[in-house]
Amino acid sequence: MYIINVRSHYDAAHFIRDYNGKCERLHGHRYEVEVALGFEDLGPGGIAYDFADAKRHLREITESLDHQNLNDLPAFAEIESSAENQARYIYDEMKERLGEFGDRLLYARVWETPNQWAQYSERVIW
Amino acid sequence: MYIINVRSHYDAAHFIRDYNGKCERLHGHRYEVEVALGFEDLGPGGIAYDFADAKRHLREITESLDHQNLNDLPAFAEIESSAENQARYIYDEMKERLGEFGDRLLYARVWETPNQWAQYSERVIW
Amino acid sequence: MYIINVRSHYDAAHFIRDYNGKCERLHGHRYEVEVALGFEDLGPGGIAYDFADAKRHLREITESLDHQNLNDLPAFAEIESSAENQARYIYDEMKERLGEFGDRLLYARVWETPNQWAQYSERVIW
Repeated sequence: MYIINVRSHYDAAHFIRDYNGKCERLHGHRYEVEVALGFEDLGPGGIAYDFADAKRHLREITESLDHQNLNDLPAFAEIESSAENQARYIYDEMKERLGEFGDRLLYARVWETPNQWAQYSERVIW
Repeated sequence: MYIINVRSHYDAAHFIRDYNGKCERLHGHRYEVEVALGFEDLGPGGIAYDFADAKRHLREITESLDHQNLNDLPAFAEIESSAENQARYIYDEMKERLGEFGDRLLYARVWETPNQWAQYSERVIW
Repeated sequence: MYIINVRSHYDAAHFIRDYNGKCERLHGHRYEVEVALGFEDLGPGGIAYDFADAKRHLREITESLDHQNLNDLPAFAEIESSAENQARYIYDEMKERLGEFGDRLLYARVWETPNQWAQYSERVIW
């Protein structure tokens, strides 16, 4: 069993609409994000899935979020821009970009600060 | 499946009583600790469990350990102050503070140095 | 359930033989590696497995890889020196050194850069 994990980041503003506390104010974070893919076997080059391709897909997503007010994006028009929902959004976008390898996606994890992260996955995963 | 994880730290002295080697000498570490909670669904604000609440609970625990000789604390009077037992202590304390959400606690992980950590959980978890 | 994790590193050169892209050129990385072991119970000293022993085993392995061209080593003569295969090699070497505790080994994870890692384990593990 092989897992590969790649990381990217985006700097963005957001606020939580339905919240009492400092997260209701427009603020921002440097978000770090990682996604992991699981494989039973290796392919050519002794590679499970090319890091370069995984990072290219992930960067496409993070570039679309970088230096944005997340609350202004269509992705977060109907749902809150919480770290949890960002993780789910990135998971869904990554899965789509992975095409036939979409079912290899294990999780997307969003670090909102160096001291807190939220993760989304379709399966029960720790 | 959503997981949230929060991190805190404490600087403390300790030694292992039943040990032959340098850990038998009184020494200290900057301990980093993280706890994770798992949820199937999100609540108001698109939030699984408020990071602020999780960090408040965890900091209460880490503040009680900060700048202490762990071996002098009641928690480690009868048991060794190993990283493993610190992880279990923090897990148990966190679970109690989480109240009705106690069963959401997945693990407590204690980084004794940047190069070694110990984790405790009630379930088999990787 | 207790897990302990230790980390080491090695600086090494490598290239992928069967690859079209920049990884086909001889280059190098500072590799960080971590291995984890799982236990149900603690032994003397409140310790699952002595961090010092785990680090000693791991360092023996990483010292054999440090400041080498991985492609010139017997370990990677027949297989590619991808991060995935390095993780598997370190897993196998660690397992052997653990002796009777070999079945406690959960995974070996190789960070090729701060933004990408590959992990090998014998079981399905996340």
